[in-house]
Amino acid sequence: VPVLDATHDPAITTWVPSGRGHGDFPIQNLPLCVFSTGDAQRHGGVRIGDELLDLAALTDAGLLDGAAAVAAAVAGAGPDLNALFALGAPARQALRQAVHRLLSAGAVEQPLVAPLLHPVAGCALHLPARIGDYTDFYAGRNHAEHVGALFRPDNPLPPNYDWVPIGYHGRASTVRPSGAPVPRPSGQRAQPDGPPVFAPSEQLDYELELGIWVGASPTPGRPVPIGRAGEQIAGYCLLNDWSARDLQRWEAQPLGPFLAKNFATTVSPYVVTPEALAPYRIALRRPAGRPGPLPYLHAELDQREGGLDIGLEVSLSTAAMRDGGRPPAVLARSSTTELYWTPAQLVAHHSSGGCELQPGDLLGSGTVSTAGDDGLGCLLEATRGGRVAVTLPGGQTRTYLADGDEVVLRARAARPGVAPVGFGECRGRVVVG
Amino acid sequence: VPVLDATHDPAITTWVPSGRGHGDFPIQNLPLCVFSTGDAQRHGGVRIGDELLDLAALTDAGLLDGAAAVAAAVAGAGPDLNALFALGAPARQALRQAVHRLLSAGAVEQPLVAPLLHPVAGCALHLPARIGDYTDFYAGRNHAEHVGALFRPDNPLPPNYDWVPIGYHGRASTVRPSGAPVPRPSGQRAQPDGPPVFAPSEQLDYELELGIWVGASPTPGRPVPIGRAGEQIAGYCLLNDWSARDLQRWEAQPLGPFLAKNFATTVSPYVVTPEALAPYRIALRRPAGRPGPLPYLHAELDQREGGLDIGLEVSLSTAAMRDGGRPPAVLARSSTTELYWTPAQLVAHHSSGGCELQPGDLLGSGTVSTAGDDGLGCLLEATRGGRVAVTLPGGQTRTYLADGDEVVLRARAARPGVAPVGFGECRGRVVVG
Repeated sequence: VPVLDATHDPAITTWVPSGRGHGDFPIQNLPLCVFSTGDAQRHGGVRIGDELLDLAALTDAGLLDGAAAVAAAVAGAGPDLNALFALGAPARQALRQAVHRLLSAGAVEQPLVAPLLHPVAGCALHLPARIGDYTDFYAGRNHAEHVGALFRPDNPLPPNYDWVPIGYHGRASTVRPSGAPVPRPSGQRAQPDGPPVFAPSEQLDYELELGIWVGASPTPGRPVPIGRAGEQIAGYCLLNDWSARDLQRWEAQPLGPFLAKNFATTVSPYVVTPEALAPYRIALRRPAGRPGPLPYLHAELDQREGGLDIGLEVSLSTAAMRDGGRPPAVLARSSTTELYWTPAQLVAHHSSGGCELQPGDLLGSGTVSTAGDDGLGCLLEATRGGRVAVTLPGGQTRTYLADGDEVVLRARAARPGVAPVGFGECRGRVVVG
Repeated sequence: VPVLDATHDPAITTWVPSGRGHGDFPIQNLPLCVFSTGDAQRHGGVRIGDELLDLAALTDAGLLDGAAAVAAAVAGAGPDLNALFALGAPARQALRQAVHRLLSAGAVEQPLVAPLLHPVAGCALHLPARIGDYTDFYAGRNHAEHVGALFRPDNPLPPNYDWVPIGYHGRASTVRPSGAPVPRPSGQRAQPDGPPVFAPSEQLDYELELGIWVGASPTPGRPVPIGRAGEQIAGYCLLNDWSARDLQRWEAQPLGPFLAKNFATTVSPYVVTPEALAPYRIALRRPAGRPGPLPYLHAELDQREGGLDIGLEVSLSTAAMRDGGRPPAVLARSSTTELYWTPAQLVAHHSSGGCELQPGDLLGSGTVSTAGDDGLGCLLEATRGGRVAVTLPGGQTRTYLADGDEVVLRARAARPGVAPVGFGECRGRVVVG
């Protein structure tokens, strides 16, 4: 059981009642977010149990000093965490240490801190950062194989897959926080005969992804070497890369997806820090016979523990299921252990040609699917390209999403003897466009 | 001769001596920019002749009123023109009218305005906007045919080309103003045998494009209909979409270009307004036998005069040419008449699925080449994929760019009896990465 420092010690608990037990947000997690209450301005907070600790109020209370005070002040000033991300890992780590101490059972500051907590149910959660650029990768090898096999059964993966962390630029302005509605896009799709039609997409899909928030470069102005690229990661979230498959199939040659994906991307609002996930670091294992990474993507420590072991889940509820009082149906359970590249490799590759990443940039991992059928991260895979419908509890079927369908992504790292770390929800409901 | 209003009247000249004659910046042009002098903050200006009119100082001087005063104030406040773009077309047009009046020969305000001019040679010019998202299109049909023919001689264009304004998202953070050095990127390229190598690109190329600056949506929160999409264009520039062909060939399947293009994009610093280009509107003519646009991309006025007639030029100087006192060599002369889609069609298509464009977004047209050999907008075309070297004055040859090579793009609209409208330079020199 790797207890890395006191903030990971599963024996330490919090005086916040809802932060005890086995929820997503124990005192070992402490994810960052941006929230507002009533008419107040957006500013930074930390989630514990069912409460948000207000970093602006904590700053005003004068309970912090040193780097933690600086970190809380810039996050508390709002309206986003970009300035906190720009401070780099040490400031974020100092803030974590200080908040952990203040929220620990027995902390003498409890009477001063308790009034600075807001029940999350009364708060609005926003995007945690102003996203400069958003990049989506394709690092889920099973997804790439499954999708490739629909079109090229004998040769599903492109020849570059073993070597290149494939990615493309996405649309930053349409990244939305969990809960924002997802209007069905219209666009062009091909017809069997005659010209294409412009109409609402009939093949709207979700994609289950890990999101990565970018922080300060440890080597400003230069590509970040793989040995230091992990330092540039400010945290993680869930990401739903909504995709209109009919639009995508028609538009994507030769330059990749465009309108098929740029109408909406949903992220969970909490920035789960690398510190919180430290106990869940693992080595990513490649399938037998695959080559190792090129030197610019190879570092010993990253090979040994650059991966993450986080359970992922997709659930779906239809309007009829909700009307009938049925709970959402879990469609897939997957894991970040299925990724082919580590987060640090994605960062190092991205910057390797001179494209420096900025604090507040967002990366998506690509769809994270299992090899088998239980953890397919999108309907394109689960329905074999729309050929085999999924049957939901109550008997409804889906090949792609219907209006009113609500998709919720969840993530949770858990292992016996270690405190669990949850991500909260990444929720989006399809509405008429 | 279409004299649309007094600001287009070729008989009106300016009291600014360098603004007379046949340069790029007569009083009929008046492009916007962001500049700084010495240690001063960046703020907005208007170019006339060889001078920049300082919009902050003009605001302080109290010489404007109404919408023009508001426009000058927000542009003058700096550090970018996003707020001006957000005001929409009427504010920009009011500013043009007012500045035209103040700079016209005989203006009684001349003694008050003359001190507000800065010689451009002493100013630093910056990106005119904070770019939220940058999108690059592929609307140069000749380029698409030439490039496609390198790989598929019998079937150069993808089947969607006639129907879809093909585009992809680019990298906003590495868009640089004219003059910024262009470090040669490193990246992966395939080898004939064995694994790929990571090394400096050996096939660095330029691409000659028209840039489009996005302004305020006339239909906020909704896709902009083609009939109003032109209103959302704040102005135009030149854009060099630097491309590493060896990296691109290896990485781009299946999701399009990524590191091969995201290391640098250069734009000219002046925002040439739709008003300045109004006399150069034309109908884009499609090759015989091609279908017309789908209804969501079809509007009568856009069909009649949604295109632009702007001459484009690429020139190159090598280090040896400069050392030998040789002038740059013109490699290509092309025209925006070669585009397959109008700027308004690009805007309408982009927003048609729900991806609203924001003031300060940047669009690239795609490489604008002629059908024949005189106006090929990149070396990939000019050298037939690197197979036929280009010979430069003095005898040097190039298949792709060498370190020290400097590429300058220029654009100029001109017709007898109408004042010319130039774009200034889009300049970049390749340096060791």
